[in-house]
Amino acid sequence: MITSKSNAKIKSLIKCMKNAKERKRQDVFLVEGIRMFSEIPASLHVETFVTEECYEKHRALFCGMVYELVSEQVMDAISDTKTPQGVVSIVKRCHYTVEEVCKGRNPLIMALENLQDPGNLGTIIRTAEGAGVTGILMSRDTVDVYNPKVVRATMGSVFRIPFCYVENLAEIVEDLNNRNFTTYSAYLQGNSFYDYDYQKPTIFCIGNEGKGLSKELLKAATYKITIPMKGKVESLNAATASTVLMYEALRQRNSNYRQK
Amino acid sequence: MITSKSNAKIKSLIKCMKNAKERKRQDVFLVEGIRMFSEIPASLHVETFVTEECYEKHRALFCGMVYELVSEQVMDAISDTKTPQGVVSIVKRCHYTVEEVCKGRNPLIMALENLQDPGNLGTIIRTAEGAGVTGILMSRDTVDVYNPKVVRATMGSVFRIPFCYVENLAEIVEDLNNRNFTTYSAYLQGNSFYDYDYQKPTIFCIGNEGKGLSKELLKAATYKITIPMKGKVESLNAATASTVLMYEALRQRNSNYRQK
Repeated sequence: MITSKSNAKIKSLIKCMKNAKERKRQDVFLVEGIRMFSEIPASLHVETFVTEECYEKHRALFCGMVYELVSEQVMDAISDTKTPQGVVSIVKRCHYTVEEVCKGRNPLIMALENLQDPGNLGTIIRTAEGAGVTGILMSRDTVDVYNPKVVRATMGSVFRIPFCYVENLAEIVEDLNNRNFTTYSAYLQGNSFYDYDYQKPTIFCIGNEGKGLSKELLKAATYKITIPMKGKVESLNAATASTVLMYEALRQRNSNYRQK
Repeated sequence: MITSKSNAKIKSLIKCMKNAKERKRQDVFLVEGIRMFSEIPASLHVETFVTEECYEKHRALFCGMVYELVSEQVMDAISDTKTPQGVVSIVKRCHYTVEEVCKGRNPLIMALENLQDPGNLGTIIRTAEGAGVTGILMSRDTVDVYNPKVVRATMGSVFRIPFCYVENLAEIVEDLNNRNFTTYSAYLQGNSFYDYDYQKPTIFCIGNEGKGLSKELLKAATYKITIPMKGKVESLNAATASTVLMYEALRQRNSNYRQK
C-alpha cells in the first residue's frame, strides 16, 4: 500500500490533478468514484488508485485491472473533490478526427461554440448519448472536456461519445453542409424549431452561455431556430436548450414516438 | 453613501446573506446583479444597495425604487459571489397555498421530491416558466428556493412562478388526482413518456438526484413514465429529465407544434 505523498507515482498524479497542461502533456485524464471507474473501457485504462475500504467493498470490479492500494491520507491528496470516493483512475485520452465524429449512416451532431460552464458541457454530453447524438464538435475556446467537473457530469458518456475540438467551427459546419448535412442554429429570433425535420443528417449549433453564437456560425448554419418560450423567459440555459433540441430529433427519428 | 460595514442596515443584510434562518425570520431573500434587479416586481421590493458605478450605468432602472448607495468595500461584504455585480436587493418572499399553485383552467404542475442540487432546482424553475408550467410543488426536504444559487439560476422566474413546500407530497398528489389531475412519475422502468397525453391537468413528479422518487410518491402517481435513452446512459440529470417532460407537454398543448 502506498502511504506516502512523496511516492513518485503519487507525485506525478497530484501534478496531473492540479494542472490541465500536465494532463494534456501526459495525454491522460483523471476519473473519480466507483461509478465512473466501472465504466472505463479497458483499452483506455492506465492505472487506478484505491483505498482498502473501497477496494474491499467493490472487489469484483477490480478483477483484471491494474491498481494500487493507497492510504486514506494519500487518497485525500489525489482527490479533486471535498469528499473523496476512495478511487481515482488515470485514463488515456481519445483522439477523434472530424471525419470520425461525423461518420455513420444518419449522423446527429452537436456543435458547441465557446461553452464555458463545465456542468453544462458535461450534462450535454450525458444527454447527447441518451438522445442518440452520434458526435460532438467543439470550438477551440470551449471548456476542456477533461476538466474533472465536466468528466464527472458526463456520468461516463465521455468514454463513449466521439468528440473533437476544431480551430474554425464555422468552416467545418459549412463544409459539412456541402456534404448533405443540415445545420440548425439555436437563436432567439429564428423560426420555431418544431417546424423542421431532423430525420436526415443534422447538426445543432449551441453558443456561449452569455453571448450566444458568433456571427460566423450563424451565417454558416442552414436555418436559425428558436425554442418557443412562455412567460417572461428570455432564453434557456445552454444545456436545457440542447436537451430540447436533441430529444425532438430523437422523437422524430423514432416512428414509435411520433403518434401523438 | 454607506461606507461602513457596521452600519445597522448593512449588519442586518450581512446576517441575512450568511444565514438562511435569518432570511426566513425576516421573510425575505436576497437578489444579486442588475439583470435580476430589473425583474423584481415592485410589490415585493424592499430595498436595494448599489455601488455608485453600477448606479450611474443603470440609472433609469432605479427610478422610483428605494435604494442606498454603498462603497465598493461594503458591496464586497454584502455580496454572496466572488465577483460582485454591484447591486444587492432585499425582496419579500411570496407565500402561495397549494390551491394557488394548482389553480387555473388547465394546470401543468411539477412536483419535486427531495431535489438537493441548487443549480438543478433553479434551472427547473427557469425552464418551467418557459415551458408554460403553471405551478411547482416541492417536498419539505427539497433544497431552499431562496438559496442564493437557486435564485440566480432561475434568472428571474422565481418572481413569477407560484410554488410551495408541502409536508406530505404523496398525499397532496393523491388528493389532486381525485380532482381531475393525472400524475406521471419519472421512473426508470415505466412506459415511454411519448405514449401519454399531457393536454389535460397534468402533474410530473421528479425525484431526488441519486435515489429517485419515494415509494409513496410512485404509488400515488397515476402512471410511471420513462424517457427513452440510447447508448449506455442509465438515467438523465433531474433538470434534463424535467426539461424533456415539460417541453413534450408544451408541444402537445400547442396545436402549432404538433404537425410533425
